[in-house]
Amino acid sequence: MRIDSKKPFKSSPEDPAPLSRSVERRVHFGECDPMGVLWHGHYASYFSEAREALGRACGIDYEDLKKAGIGLPIKTMFLDYSIPLLYGQVYTVEASLHWSEAARLNIAYRILDREGLVATTGFTVQLMVNEAGEFYPFPPPFYQAFLDGWAAGRLAAIQR
Amino acid sequence: MRIDSKKPFKSSPEDPAPLSRSVERRVHFGECDPMGVLWHGHYASYFSEAREALGRACGIDYEDLKKAGIGLPIKTMFLDYSIPLLYGQVYTVEASLHWSEAARLNIAYRILDREGLVATTGFTVQLMVNEAGEFYPFPPPFYQAFLDGWAAGRLAAIQR
Amino acid sequence: MRIDSKKPFKSSPEDPAPLSRSVERRVHFGECDPMGVLWHGHYASYFSEAREALGRACGIDYEDLKKAGIGLPIKTMFLDYSIPLLYGQVYTVEASLHWSEAARLNIAYRILDREGLVATTGFTVQLMVNEAGEFYPFPPPFYQAFLDGWAAGRLAAIQR
Amino acid sequence: MRIDSKKPFKSSPEDPAPLSRSVERRVHFGECDPMGVLWHGHYASYFSEAREALGRACGIDYEDLKKAGIGLPIKTMFLDYSIPLLYGQVYTVEASLHWSEAARLNIAYRILDREGLVATTGFTVQLMVNEAGEFYPFPPPFYQAFLDGWAAGRLAAIQR
Repeated sequence: MRIDSKKPFKSSPEDPAPLSRSVERRVHFGECDPMGVLWHGHYASYFSEAREALGRACGIDYEDLKKAGIGLPIKTMFLDYSIPLLYGQVYTVEASLHWSEAARLNIAYRILDREGLVATTGFTVQLMVNEAGEFYPFPPPFYQAFLDGWAAGRLAAIQR
Repeated sequence: MRIDSKKPFKSSPEDPAPLSRSVERRVHFGECDPMGVLWHGHYASYFSEAREALGRACGIDYEDLKKAGIGLPIKTMFLDYSIPLLYGQVYTVEASLHWSEAARLNIAYRILDREGLVATTGFTVQLMVNEAGEFYPFPPPFYQAFLDGWAAGRLAAIQR
Repeated sequence: MRIDSKKPFKSSPEDPAPLSRSVERRVHFGECDPMGVLWHGHYASYFSEAREALGRACGIDYEDLKKAGIGLPIKTMFLDYSIPLLYGQVYTVEASLHWSEAARLNIAYRILDREGLVATTGFTVQLMVNEAGEFYPFPPPFYQAFLDGWAAGRLAAIQR
Repeated sequence: MRIDSKKPFKSSPEDPAPLSRSVERRVHFGECDPMGVLWHGHYASYFSEAREALGRACGIDYEDLKKAGIGLPIKTMFLDYSIPLLYGQVYTVEASLHWSEAARLNIAYRILDREGLVATTGFTVQLMVNEAGEFYPFPPPFYQAFLDGWAAGRLAAIQR
């Protein structure tokens, strides 16, 4: 796989705009390493928190998908750390779901400090599996309905 | 940045062979998520454990570098999850430092199950900073001496 | 040490009332174990978050104390788990500092669900050390000034 | 509940001796806090690792119990931190199951450094629940058979 970390997901001009959601999170003492900054291994938890907020806002949270018989394991994750996150400071963690017609979620992330400076970027790719753990070759009905709604503009409230 | 996840680091035939080290690690209950498998956010800790073992074997552990005034923050991390890691099972986590003449560590990782099947691959890039947090434009003396020893074959015992 | 988990800290009627602070926290997917509930090992992080909020509100946060040359390692921690915390739900985590004239912090915790039901209780004891890691036999000046202010009613705004 | 942290579990002279198991564990960078020592919240993971090793040695691991329809949530946990655990050092984590005729596991823990010095002690109490989450008033058959074997000396190999 070739990755362009600045633009990880292909898109075309007619794609519906991404769906976005942000959470605020304060860096805790036990998350900081001996350098006094957020340990790099904890960023996955920051991304998750924003991804879950986005899922709840869209109606495709873990529990919604589970009811529809869909699992969503992470296939790839990439992180690019630019500015260390500091103890006690509050950051904005933003997750943006990019349009794809496949049975997958392509999500890009940004972590911003209080001045709006981008401290971290990254992305995750999740692939849909059925209850037997087999990959869906195309979107299962529950997710296709979600895509149709997105294309029809019914999620405009959380569109960037 | 463009990444080829199968071959993240450029190399030429005359480069010294990578330095490798493995650790064994058993998946614990509290590391498993509601799907009953290792939560994707915990893999960074598995990679770290192998990276630390490699650093100790090479004489470039966190504490060695700190004494030499060198910090080594992670700049990028990539993970490709192929096969879920299961509760109670033991896995081999391998870290391989690839040759670079820059002030950076390019490390590739593999996690293998007991049959030798590759469950996960990934890489990290770390950049060297001085005590003021400024990037080194070229290897500081302590690290240059390490590179010289590697090129001279003095680390053959941990070379793949 | 003998502990009465319902009333871990001795008090007398003339003691100033405890100082309290709460945070809200939502349970994330990666914090849940294969039983689908918050893994017991993550509660320390919930307690910490409330303790840090209390420290900031009181002016005795980690960074305030560090400037004053005071370290605050945890000496004992106790947790009593009554009701499991569930994925995606929001809980209130409350930390209450109980009066003591010694160089220590005696903090009791409660985690409550949206209906106000107490799901978890616990406490931590922290002992003050100087920069050489030696225990203070009595409160160092910075902390004594805090105690004096508390006794004089200057922290009434965060008193329960 | 009243706890004597030095002797958390009642016993009588005729009780079968405790069952014990130890694991070795090295402290990793990302587990250390800004003080450069193992963050107090990570000890639960150390205890868990020893508890799981003990469960596997005894035939009462999470998966064994799950097959028998028994869940084992943690009810209480206590930790007493005496000596900080240091980055890169290897420690022995010991879990000892103490005899009880109730549907519960009473486990005491010790963490020792390379010189055998006890750095940490603690205990957990786990209560058995059925698949509906209801507490067992007395040991379910699978666990009673384990207790009978222990009393009959069939676990002498892992008895202290």
